[in-house]
Amino acid sequence: MLNYPNKIKKDYKKNINYGNRGMDLENMINEANEYYLEKNMALIYKKPTPIGIVKVSYDNNKQKIKDAYFATQSTLDYNGLYKGKYVEFDAKNTESKTSFPISNVHLHQIKHIRRVIEHGGIVFLIIRIKGLIFLLNGPDFISFIDNTDRKSIPFDYIKEKGYLLEYNYIKGLDYLKYVDLIGGLNNEKN
Amino acid sequence: MLNYPNKIKKDYKKNINYGNRGMDLENMINEANEYYLEKNMALIYKKPTPIGIVKVSYDNNKQKIKDAYFATQSTLDYNGLYKGKYVEFDAKNTESKTSFPISNVHLHQIKHIRRVIEHGGIVFLIIRIKGLIFLLNGPDFISFIDNTDRKSIPFDYIKEKGYLLEYNYIKGLDYLKYVDLIGGLNNEKN
Repeated sequence: MLNYPNKIKKDYKKNINYGNRGMDLENMINEANEYYLEKNMALIYKKPTPIGIVKVSYDNNKQKIKDAYFATQSTLDYNGLYKGKYVEFDAKNTESKTSFPISNVHLHQIKHIRRVIEHGGIVFLIIRIKGLIFLLNGPDFISFIDNTDRKSIPFDYIKEKGYLLEYNYIKGLDYLKYVDLIGGLNNEKN
Repeated sequence: MLNYPNKIKKDYKKNINYGNRGMDLENMINEANEYYLEKNMALIYKKPTPIGIVKVSYDNNKQKIKDAYFATQSTLDYNGLYKGKYVEFDAKNTESKTSFPISNVHLHQIKHIRRVIEHGGIVFLIIRIKGLIFLLNGPDFISFIDNTDRKSIPFDYIKEKGYLLEYNYIKGLDYLKYVDLIGGLNNEKN
């Protein structure tokens, strides 16, 4: 756990503070998932990065990978279980200051998002744009694609439809409260 | 898709026929998952095998893994979404003819199974024992552990509590109908 100076601790509610600005989106999400697991709130994991194995050798009867490459995930990177519901999402960064290029999401991932919606799961993207991090609900993402011919989603659309996430030095990037919201789970006991 | 001689095709309902006897449990499950996906019945995937990377090099600006080892999954190997429900399971083989050693399931996996049950997910094991393949519901697995001091589950317990799975040359190892059963999903529309 990182120690933040008191000044920043006090201010994080006022200003959106993502701790170290260079902090990896993935690390912030992992911190949140670890917190949720520790508090027994949700079971959400990042899937291992898929690799294609070219060569395996044996050292003292133990398999060692000697040649392999990174492959692409055909689904989204994170999934799990929250209040009895299936949850899946991916984290995406963009350097663009004005919009989020849809090409950041692979075609097979877009297809997968549609399927998760159809089968009754909760699915969303966590998008970092202009130094801010938003949760954009899957149906809002798909609806943009289906209703425009644009190749990228304007910042204003993400700001309007999405939920601004804050980094909390205890909880990490706390996104679960917005899963309650988009999944209609606020008033359910289970 | 494998082609089976007609004789076997006709007989597979009568005798439990897992096709090629040496066929990998994992392949039979993957075939089923592909069938379910193709028919838009369920979204269930095997998670990539986690690896620990020791050394990465660059070939023409492309990352290549030059030294790595296989790590263990802290959750179960397969998970996904079926009729709005979270589903997770693992496949286990045993060479033993009389019982299934509980040590085949890692301690962190047992802990994870308990958590999935607690959070309202559907969780089970697919166990191959004595050339037969059974689906054993998570709560029945946990109940055995909690109520006995035995280090392995007798074949008779698995036969009594589990569901015998058949291999179908179209559907693969068709387990989904028993997920309906253990998840109480038979009469639900979604």
